[in-house]
Order: sequence, then structure tokens, then C-alpha cells
Amino acid sequence: MRKPVSSVELANWLGGELLGETRLVARLVPPGRPVEDGVAVAGSAKLLAALEGTRLAAVVVPENLATETSLPAIQVPDARLALAQLSALFDDRPREAPGLHPAATIHPSAELGPGVSVGPNAVVEAGAVVGANSIIGPGSVIGQGSQLGEGCHLHAKVVLYDGVRLGARATLHSGVVIGADGFGYAVSPHGLVKIHHLAGVEIGDDVEIGANASVDRGTLDPTRIGNRCKIDNNCLLGHNVQVGSDTVIAGKAGIGGSTRIGSRVLVSGGAILTDHITVGDDARISFCAMVTKDVPPGAVFSGSPAMPHRKFARRLYLLSRLERIWQMMKGLERD
Amino acid sequence: MRKPVSSVELANWLGGELLGETRLVARLVPPGRPVEDGVAVAGSAKLLAALEGTRLAAVVVPENLATETSLPAIQVPDARLALAQLSALFDDRPREAPGLHPAATIHPSAELGPGVSVGPNAVVEAGAVVGANSIIGPGSVIGQGSQLGEGCHLHAKVVLYDGVRLGARATLHSGVVIGADGFGYAVSPHGLVKIHHLAGVEIGDDVEIGANASVDRGTLDPTRIGNRCKIDNNCLLGHNVQVGSDTVIAGKAGIGGSTRIGSRVLVSGGAILTDHITVGDDARISFCAMVTKDVPPGAVFSGSPAMPHRKFARRLYLLSRLERIWQMMKGLERD
Amino acid sequence: MRKPVSSVELANWLGGELLGETRLVARLVPPGRPVEDGVAVAGSAKLLAALEGTRLAAVVVPENLATETSLPAIQVPDARLALAQLSALFDDRPREAPGLHPAATIHPSAELGPGVSVGPNAVVEAGAVVGANSIIGPGSVIGQGSQLGEGCHLHAKVVLYDGVRLGARATLHSGVVIGADGFGYAVSPHGLVKIHHLAGVEIGDDVEIGANASVDRGTLDPTRIGNRCKIDNNCLLGHNVQVGSDTVIAGKAGIGGSTRIGSRVLVSGGAILTDHITVGDDARISFCAMVTKDVPPGAVFSGSPAMPHRKFARRLYLLSRLERIWQMMKGLERD
Repeated sequence: MRKPVSSVELANWLGGELLGETRLVARLVPPGRPVEDGVAVAGSAKLLAALEGTRLAAVVVPENLATETSLPAIQVPDARLALAQLSALFDDRPREAPGLHPAATIHPSAELGPGVSVGPNAVVEAGAVVGANSIIGPGSVIGQGSQLGEGCHLHAKVVLYDGVRLGARATLHSGVVIGADGFGYAVSPHGLVKIHHLAGVEIGDDVEIGANASVDRGTLDPTRIGNRCKIDNNCLLGHNVQVGSDTVIAGKAGIGGSTRIGSRVLVSGGAILTDHITVGDDARISFCAMVTKDVPPGAVFSGSPAMPHRKFARRLYLLSRLERIWQMMKGLERD
Repeated sequence: MRKPVSSVELANWLGGELLGETRLVARLVPPGRPVEDGVAVAGSAKLLAALEGTRLAAVVVPENLATETSLPAIQVPDARLALAQLSALFDDRPREAPGLHPAATIHPSAELGPGVSVGPNAVVEAGAVVGANSIIGPGSVIGQGSQLGEGCHLHAKVVLYDGVRLGARATLHSGVVIGADGFGYAVSPHGLVKIHHLAGVEIGDDVEIGANASVDRGTLDPTRIGNRCKIDNNCLLGHNVQVGSDTVIAGKAGIGGSTRIGSRVLVSGGAILTDHITVGDDARISFCAMVTKDVPPGAVFSGSPAMPHRKFARRLYLLSRLERIWQMMKGLERD
Repeated sequence: MRKPVSSVELANWLGGELLGETRLVARLVPPGRPVEDGVAVAGSAKLLAALEGTRLAAVVVPENLATETSLPAIQVPDARLALAQLSALFDDRPREAPGLHPAATIHPSAELGPGVSVGPNAVVEAGAVVGANSIIGPGSVIGQGSQLGEGCHLHAKVVLYDGVRLGARATLHSGVVIGADGFGYAVSPHGLVKIHHLAGVEIGDDVEIGANASVDRGTLDPTRIGNRCKIDNNCLLGHNVQVGSDTVIAGKAGIGGSTRIGSRVLVSGGAILTDHITVGDDARISFCAMVTKDVPPGAVFSGSPAMPHRKFARRLYLLSRLERIWQMMKGLERD
């Protein structure tokens, strides 16, 4: 959005209320760069105090802080949600060039919906189906018979193997690989024998997957990721994994083959889940946890190996007492 | 395989024996989808029991379960091996288009054996040699002077730097990078000085490497991976690493520079090995272990830092006793 | 360098001194391959002893070892630095073909400096600026408006999103992704709402980043990496991360969003830092540490969760005493 917008309009659009002078807002700025035509979001009293005396056009604040500033303030129910909304409104990042680039390779049997863009050196293989208004970035590859819903955005150098289905509005970042063979072998006298992975991957609507992440295909039934899941960079989801909807998997997490993860689960960064386990709905896996067994719905698991968080916190406390235990022990021995 | 096959033929081909009615089998199915023209593999009594009453054409079972079903059963010595064999037989996934795609870039000095396929936007650089019947996927790059044996399959967007040698029948998945510079620097008063990596990577026959994994090149001698090794997605093998044959390295594992791993070793998912250590033949590194010193042949190492598994199991037990130790301690203090 | 060089010239060039016969040196070899026209670097007495009796043209040794060999020896102040210097001198790896490959896609509005090379299937998007003598490898993508300094080398299949700036002499290995969206969402009644990431990534001079690593873009201010930083394969730097200069981040490390890392820091392999923390200048993070809070300047932190290294070492010692504590405890209970 290039044209400045009045702060009262902004307030209405955010479902909030403007307290103070109406000004023109041209850009969304971080609190550390409070320019005159900018709006900033200050979620805490500390951030807000630091803005005092600046000439910011408006500051967006949660309701409890609205009276703690002399700047024009837009009070909103949820400052982080307002940040997300403003970031979309002021997003003037360049868009990929529309249309089918002459250096793209599109098989005659592929079906492209209206408004589809395919970048240079992208490849759409035989029988692939790309939904309306989807964007295939430079150098991306859509494998044979794979299907994309409407409004998907594959950035540069995404690879979908054959038999992958994406719902609507999937966003896949560069280096994502969906549908590579699972890591499964049988032992034989002549070495390992590969288990062929005949099923693909099914991904729901509004899923986002970060750079260089990979999701392997299923053996006989597809690997599945539900609607609105968000998966961060460098994550690995093994073959046959099943993920519910609205689940968040943060950076560098790994999910072992055939593991089932419910809906609204949070897997924090660096966490690794072994194969063939089940994580219930609404569970939370802590930062860098190593999960070796089932996690009940709603539970919070932490540590290596992971355990219920309260138990883990107690374990940390007890470890901090080890020195004292040891000294007392030595005292007893001397007695 | 499209044409249905009789279950007695299947039994012979698997080296097993059919008990019960001969039927026509058109597909390999998971136990959860027991269709009438399908064969399923049931490795456990529980899976087998769940199939009772279905109309499956045949169920493949290990010898000890053959009499526990009323379905036509193919008894085999090893159910998992039978699954691998059946998955190959019923693999009707689409193949990459044969031949040299017009949008491939192949240097005139490159040598391609008979039956080689090169996909769109793939690049084969000067002096590269590609063995007979190998497939170079869309957008893959074969660096200068690199060599592939016969029957290799590089999926889309694989990169081999210069000086990489693959044996026969290597399978490299999308995003694999072989031969990037090792991470080696010398300290100088003007900052770090790069150590150039002059040697490449040598990989044996029948090796498979998963999506987005990387294997760095050697400094003065090549990094080496032996025959029949299987390396999973997102793994990292540093410069100068040496791996024997038949070793399995699971997802997200990392092997530090100059570390030597023997043959028939299992490195489980998420395990990290530091640099300059040696892991003996037939050793097993447990899930997410952090290995900081040599591992003897045949040993099982677990934990962070890793230790012999029995010691690790005892350590876990002792940790579970900490609460009791602490309470008793406090009791003694009160006395 | 193809033409052999005399060992006395080599000694001068390395700032060292030749003791013994002057010979012609044609190649740099590892100590394990001591050929007649080779120079090897032996940093330890053990390596040096193993070379005794070979016909090596010269051996490079640190000053304290110079008299411990009968081979012609070049004594240098720092053997590892000499290795780096020799590795550059004897680097005869093939170079990428110069010039603009006809299969490259370069937008008319992009500005390429003199001597720039762009490989086949590389894409330089609208408004991008590439500094003199930079090399864009096959299949790499330079996003709209991104800028590269002079003498950069992007290997095959590197992706820069829009709004990325690289200083001079950056080396990015295959599969690197710079500027993908950060992992940030707000909660709403309709699921997670994406926070758009409007700022890019700014990277200083002489930075090297390893294969399949990713650095996410900033939300409102750029993610920044200072001069001379070295980042290894498969690393992940989240959105808004700030890294000083001369910092080294080893393989598979992960840095959470908005975390600040000072200058001359060492983050060892496999270490994971949570988001929104600060690591001071000259700090060292140990192998596979899980860092959950600020690290003061100059500190060494180890463990999961990470703590000062001395405390961690003590903790390991105390853990090794657990068996004895437990046995004594049981003894007391029996009394």
C-alpha cells in the first residue's frame, strides 16, 4: 500500500479505537525507528515509554496501555494480531512477474488454472494440476500428477515429487522438498532392500512450510498435514507422518516416520520426535525436547528424554541440589 | 505392475508358501485398506486379527502367524523383506521422461553413457562422466569432472560440485549437495583464512541419500562413503569423513569433520558426532545421542554426552531416584 | 598453480624458513600420501615422525618441531595458517565458465558489474545489482532488488529472495536460502495470521555460508550478519537475528528469531539458541548446547540447558557420583 492512510481509518480497520490526533500514516515501522509518517506497535509498557517524545503518527497499543502515552494511540484488543494485520496492509514487497515465463517447461498434459504464474526454469510435469492464481517460483518442479489448490505460492526452487497434493493457499519456501522417498529398508543377506514408497503426500489448506524443510511421502497411504499447519525452516517430517490441523512446528524440528500429531499442537524449535508415537491434540513439546513416547492430549513435555513439564522442572531443581547432596554425603562418610 | 498376478505366483516369487485359496492380486495395500484385489502384509498378530472378516485376496504373514487367520495367507520367513519386495513389484509411480531434454545444458566435453536421461534445466558441466542408464533429474547440476556410475538416479535439484564420484545405482534425493567446501579456517591477525578443499567426495555403489542432506568435500584426500550406505534427509557429513559400507545414518544426524565411521554402523535420528572421532564397525548410536569420543566396535552408545547404553540406562534410573535421595537428605538434616 | 615452485620460494612466501635441501614442489599432499614432489603440513610430532624415511620434497612444521625431522623442513609460526595458504596456492579446482550463459535469465533492469558471470538457468530478477567479478552459479536466483558486492561467489542453486544485500566476496554454497519469510504468526479466532516480513537481510563482507543453510528476513528491520562471519552447512538463522563480525557458527546450529550474537563468538556444531536472547562478544557456545538465556561476553556455555562451562563440568562430575550416592543412601536406609 503506497498511499498514506489516516490513523482513524487504520483504527477502524484494526477494530480498535484512536485516542488523540488523526494523522496520515505511510508506513509500518519498528519501535526503534519512530518516523513522523509511521505507525509502530508497542506491546509492552517499556516499548511504549521509549517512544515518548517521538513524532510517530500513531502507536498501536493493547487496551491496558492506551492511557500511558501522549502519542496518538490506537488501542486494540490484541497488539500482535494488529501487527500481523498492519504488516499485510503495508506489504509492498515486489511480486513475482505474472504469467508463464518462456523459459518455463510445462508439459502439454499439465492443467493450469486461470491466473497461474510459472517462473523461469520452473518445470510442471505431465498430468500436474495447478489451481487458479497459483504462483510457481523460478526453478521449482511440480512432479507428475501432483496437484495444487488455488492461490498457492511456491517460491524459487521448491520440489514436489509425483503424487503430492496441496490444498488452497499453500506457501512453500525455497528449498522445500515434498514427497521424497521415506527412509525405509528391510534387512536381507545381500544388504538393505529398499521399501518403495508408493503413496504421496496430502497437505491441507493454508499451510506454510519454511526453507529447506522436507516432508517424505507415505509407504502405502499418504503422509498427511492438516489445514492451517505452519512448519518452519529445516524441519523434517518422515514417511507416513500424520498431522492434524492448526499445528505449529518450529525450526529444525524433526518428526520420525509414522508418528501421529494431533491438532493445535506446538512443537518447539529443535525438538525431535521418534517414530511411531502419538502426540495428542493441544499438546506442547518444549524447545529441543527429545520425545521417545506418546504425549497425551493437552500435556506439556520437556527434556531429553521428554517427560511432563512439571516433572522436568522438578528434575532441574533436583539436579541443582546435587552439589549439596554430594557434600552432605561426604560429610556423612567422614563421620 | 499393472496386470494382476495370482497369489500363488506371488508366494513363489517371495520364497514363501500360500495357505488357502489362490486369488488374483492387483495391488499392495496397507492393512487398514483391505480391498478385494489387494495383498497386505501383517507382521503382528494384532494387525492380522484386525483383518479377519475382510475380503483381502491374500495376507502376507511371518511363519509363526500363518495359522492364525482364515484369510488366504502367504507365509514368509521375513515379513518386512516381503513388504520391500512387494513394494518394488507394485511400484507404478511415474518414471522421469527418458532422453536428453532440450532445456538441459550439457557441455560438449561431458560423456554420457547409453540410455542416460537428463531432465529440463539440468546442467552437466565440462568433463563430467555419466554412466549408462543414469537419470539426472530436472535442475540438477553435475560439476566439472564429476563421475556417476551406471544406473544412478539423481532426483530434481541435486548438486554435485566438481570432483565428486558416485558408484553405480546411487539414489540422491532433491536438495542433496555433495562436495561443497568443508568448514575449515585458520586464524590470522586479519580474521579467518579459508582452507581450500582440493579433494572431492567418493561414494560407493548402491548408496541412497535423502532430501536436503549434504556431504562436504575433503581437504587433501576425498571424503568417502562406502557401498550400500543409506543416509536420510537433512543429514550433514563434514569434510574428510570416512564411512565404511552398509552403514545407516538416520534423519537429521550430523557427522563432524574427519570423523571415521565403520561398516554396518547405525547412527540413529538426530544423533550428532563431533569431529575427529572413530566409531567402530557394528556400533550403534542411539536416537539424539551427542557423541564426543570414540565408540568401540559393536558398542551401543546413548545420551548427551554419549556413553555405553547400559551405563546410560543406569544413569536414567539413578536420575529417577533423585527425588527420594533429596527427601532422605532433608530428613537426615532435620535429625 | 601448475608450475612447480622451489621450496625456498615457498618458505619465503609463507613467511617461514627452509631448513635443508631446496627441492621442487608440485603439489600439496596429506601426510598420508608423501610423494616426491609434494609438500605436506605436519602440525604434530606424531605426524612428523610418521613421515621419516619418505621422499617428500618438504614438510611444513611449527617452529618447535623444526629440528625433529631429517626431511627438508619449512618452519612457520602457525602450521594451520600455512596449510590455508598452501591450499589456496595449490588450488587447481576448475573454475566456473566465465560470462553470461545463454540459458541464464537476466531481467533487463538488473545491473551487472564488469566481469560478472552468470551460469545456465540462473535467474537475476528485476532491479537486482551484482558487483564486479561476481559469479552466480547454475540455477541460482537473485530476487528483485537484491544487491551483491564485488567478487561474490554463489555456487549452484542458491536463492536470494528480494531485499537481500551481500557485501563483497560473499561465498554462498549450494542450497543456501537467504531472505525467506520469518516464522511469525498472530493468534486469531480463525487460526494463525501470518506476520508479513517486510525487511530483508544484510550480510557484510567476506562472509561464507554452507550448503543448505537458511537465513530468514527481518520483520521491520533487516536480519544482519557482520563482516567475516562463517556459517556452516544446514544452519538456520531466524528472522531479525543480529550477528556481529568474525563470528563462527558451526554445522547444524540454529539461532532463534530476534536473538543477538556479538562479535568473535563461536557457536559450535549442533548448538541451538532460543529466540530473543543476547550472546556477548567473544562468548563460546559448546557443541550441541541448548541455550535458553543470555550469555555474557567472553563466557563459555555448555549443556542442555546451557550453563557456564565450569558449572557444567562440575555437573557432569556430580552425575558420575550418583551411583555412589545411591548406594550410600540404600546403606543408610538399611541401618
